Amino acid sequence: MHARIIILVIIIATAGIAPLHAANTPVSSQKVPAKAQVCAGCHGPQGLGGGIYPRIAGQPTDYLQQQLRLFHSGARVNDFMQPVAKGLSDKDITELADYFSSIKASYEPSTRPISVAELAHGRELVTVGDWRDGAPACMRCHGPDLTGVAPGIPALVGQSPEYMLSRLQMFRDVNGGSLPLMVMSHASKGMSDADLQAVTGYIAHMKLGEHLEMVRPPQDATYQFVPQSPDNFEPPPDSAIPTGPEGDMIWHGLQIFEDTQHEAGRYVGDNLNCSSCHMDLGRRADSAPMWAAYVVYPKYRDKNKKVNTLEERIQGCFRYSMNGTPPAADNPEMVALVTYFHWLATGLPVGITPKGAGYPKLAPPTHPADIQRGAKVFADNCALCHGDDGQGHESRSEMVFPPVWGPKSFNWGAGMERISTAAGFIQANMPYGAGGTLSDQDAWDVAAFVVSHARPQDPRFNGSVEETRKQYHAQDSYYGRVIDDHLLGSPANHQ
Amino acid sequence: MHARIIILVIIIATAGIAPLHAANTPVSSQKVPAKAQVCAGCHGPQGLGGGIYPRIAGQPTDYLQQQLRLFHSGARVNDFMQPVAKGLSDKDITELADYFSSIKASYEPSTRPISVAELAHGRELVTVGDWRDGAPACMRCHGPDLTGVAPGIPALVGQSPEYMLSRLQMFRDVNGGSLPLMVMSHASKGMSDADLQAVTGYIAHMKLGEHLEMVRPPQDATYQFVPQSPDNFEPPPDSAIPTGPEGDMIWHGLQIFEDTQHEAGRYVGDNLNCSSCHMDLGRRADSAPMWAAYVVYPKYRDKNKKVNTLEERIQGCFRYSMNGTPPAADNPEMVALVTYFHWLATGLPVGITPKGAGYPKLAPPTHPADIQRGAKVFADNCALCHGDDGQGHESRSEMVFPPVWGPKSFNWGAGMERISTAAGFIQANMPYGAGGTLSDQDAWDVAAFVVSHARPQDPRFNGSVEETRKQYHAQDSYYGRVIDDHLLGSPANHQ
Repeated sequence: MHARIIILVIIIATAGIAPLHAANTPVSSQKVPAKAQVCAGCHGPQGLGGGIYPRIAGQPTDYLQQQLRLFHSGARVNDFMQPVAKGLSDKDITELADYFSSIKASYEPSTRPISVAELAHGRELVTVGDWRDGAPACMRCHGPDLTGVAPGIPALVGQSPEYMLSRLQMFRDVNGGSLPLMVMSHASKGMSDADLQAVTGYIAHMKLGEHLEMVRPPQDATYQFVPQSPDNFEPPPDSAIPTGPEGDMIWHGLQIFEDTQHEAGRYVGDNLNCSSCHMDLGRRADSAPMWAAYVVYPKYRDKNKKVNTLEERIQGCFRYSMNGTPPAADNPEMVALVTYFHWLATGLPVGITPKGAGYPKLAPPTHPADIQRGAKVFADNCALCHGDDGQGHESRSEMVFPPVWGPKSFNWGAGMERISTAAGFIQANMPYGAGGTLSDQDAWDVAAFVVSHARPQDPRFNGSVEETRKQYHAQDSYYGRVIDDHLLGSPANHQ
Repeated sequence: MHARIIILVIIIATAGIAPLHAANTPVSSQKVPAKAQVCAGCHGPQGLGGGIYPRIAGQPTDYLQQQLRLFHSGARVNDFMQPVAKGLSDKDITELADYFSSIKASYEPSTRPISVAELAHGRELVTVGDWRDGAPACMRCHGPDLTGVAPGIPALVGQSPEYMLSRLQMFRDVNGGSLPLMVMSHASKGMSDADLQAVTGYIAHMKLGEHLEMVRPPQDATYQFVPQSPDNFEPPPDSAIPTGPEGDMIWHGLQIFEDTQHEAGRYVGDNLNCSSCHMDLGRRADSAPMWAAYVVYPKYRDKNKKVNTLEERIQGCFRYSMNGTPPAADNPEMVALVTYFHWLATGLPVGITPKGAGYPKLAPPTHPADIQRGAKVFADNCALCHGDDGQGHESRSEMVFPPVWGPKSFNWGAGMERISTAAGFIQANMPYGAGGTLSDQDAWDVAAFVVSHARPQDPRFNGSVEETRKQYHAQDSYYGRVIDDHLLGSPANHQ
């Protein structure tokens, strides 16, 4: 188990009630732009916000610029902000964003009373989410301390709860739109008023810098495991994890799955976790869920021309998708993963491929998958999180959004390098939390774009790109092809 | 895979029809007893039989003696034999049995036409049995070439098919009785006339010395795997094994399970197979069936105080029950076993303990389990197969009936050394093919008798019998107890 200590701080009544504006001594190295006084009217001189006014201090520069430009253009509708933004020049926008972003201000957690149950529910939504309602965990995008992920994802910790609540209500009421509105719209769609209160209440009670991790919920001993149909399987909730050593092992497996980088880092050679390719901690149908893998293996695989046990299949993930050195079949981390998967599959019939297994197979595209069109799809739908350069983004040196090509992404032996596999995965699961929104054609195109970039060598490389291509990448792959004057898979640009 | 070649010889029309009596030149080193002429009237001068008269040539001496004594006493009813046997002295019986047993005569397989389908069905019953009807394979008791197993089990190959048929019909019609009648009564109870015809027809067409093995049946591609209830699970038939490498692996696992001695011998240190403790190749409910183990593991075990994967649990069998050196978790034999178990469990829900898992837990005995009473139960119900000395019996150097104590039986670390475990196993599964016939009290008593004998040391032995007893055998075990002046588990009598 990773050594980080999970600290759940429940601050229900701390002494002294201080208004947000005066709670701390902001520090900025930047000169105050003249136009800052316009912002100060509502957001306060240091942009700390409060009430319905959001905290803008310390938000990522690019995020602030982007929002001001959206107000300026009218794309983001707001009666207060649109007129103000209209009066700003491009230079004003850059200066204001830089200034407010540079303000380092501490933050006093809310002292408003909140019940332990509501706090726990909020924490669950923030750290685990509720994928049955389509809601990923807040921290999956806003970072493990909710301080945002530059350049595009805003901080939530320190934000005014009233503001967050009104924004979530708005997100919940809209349908679709473009990124990131569309993602937030999907994420909040299934949330009840109580959910929104719990989420914002929990965040308001967080300490700045508090590092979030999932907390093992107390066992709900009333949960009944029953046989289920493979046609619409529902894996058990975390609260069904039993107490005792078996439950400890299940939970440990879940932690490895979530944060493979830290919990099984010596077996990982890139910046991916198991959960990078398997949404909702391996629970989500059409996201190669682990309950399906559990009942399907051992199984013959054409990839290595033999019957693979579940352990061997998992080793394949470590070797290819995580570009690492796989743990042995009876290694403790492996045992924990298998124990977790076994538990996830409780009630599912053995050996009958359930609905939602693997990634969906898309019909062949109407127009052949096109890298150039894919580049546009990527810029519009993926770059916010994965970066313009596809290298993902970190928060405080921890991977939040995985790199999708390059030296720290999956290697050429991974299933995901196949255009069809990537297209199926993307269509069903991306953008994160808004799977199913891209058209099949867009998914094919963006898949082609992503997998036509350099990435680490195929561990099965036999010394010749041409031979390796013939043997393992004869079709559905860009390995061994020349794209933009680069021979993909070439040891010369071997990452 | 074991290197023995499976030869299925279908002799439907060989040239030359020779009467059984004249088919060969019998050889005996024994002087012909005077009373042999009485036998010759029906069984022929060399006891080769034919028609309704059984072949007595070459049968085990003890078996012939026993039958003559049963006729003599009237316990075995037969209008011809009872008067004849009445006239025989004890010396006559010994001489006649020795003489006819000593006759080595070859045998011409039947030339009577038989359909390929009937032959295949007969072979299936002879080599696999049909446990759904309560019928174990003939070869499990009569030996892998059906030449009988001395001292008590008669040969079937060479036997007159008419005689076999009439005996099976008789067995089928009686209820209960004592061993071995009771076992044959159970085995034949569920068999149809067609089954009996197929069995006897197949045996009549066997060559003397033909070594039987299970033959993988052609795939029945119409078999539908469907979700099943854990309350009354039925594992798939062998004919549902798919073609291709996955099916090959399943079949290989089945073979290892059946004949661990040959198929995975380097991991086995005693004379047991997986199938020695798990009836019907791991299919049978209440016989620790493998489909149940598959869905239950990984699971916490108090025995080693940790979560055990299925592989680790299987390693425990090799280490303790088979007194060997377990294969690694990813060893080919292990993979084959796990693949077989996975297939056996097809349709069974994961993680929900199914009905029939493990061995039944008997209620505590009315009278404390008693070794002396158990000795009598053993002599009456177990010794025929396992031997008066509990060392089992071989046929042509192959174990047919496993030793239940002593140097070639399971060691003191096996679950079966626990009195309660052995009692539950025995009551549900012994005598072979007639499980459920012993009273609970008899099962407790005979279990106590069996596990109160010396056997190989517990691999967890820590240097002190007393300490090992305290740590692993504090109750429900004779380890560390003095029985008949022997300290069980003592390195001095460490087998």
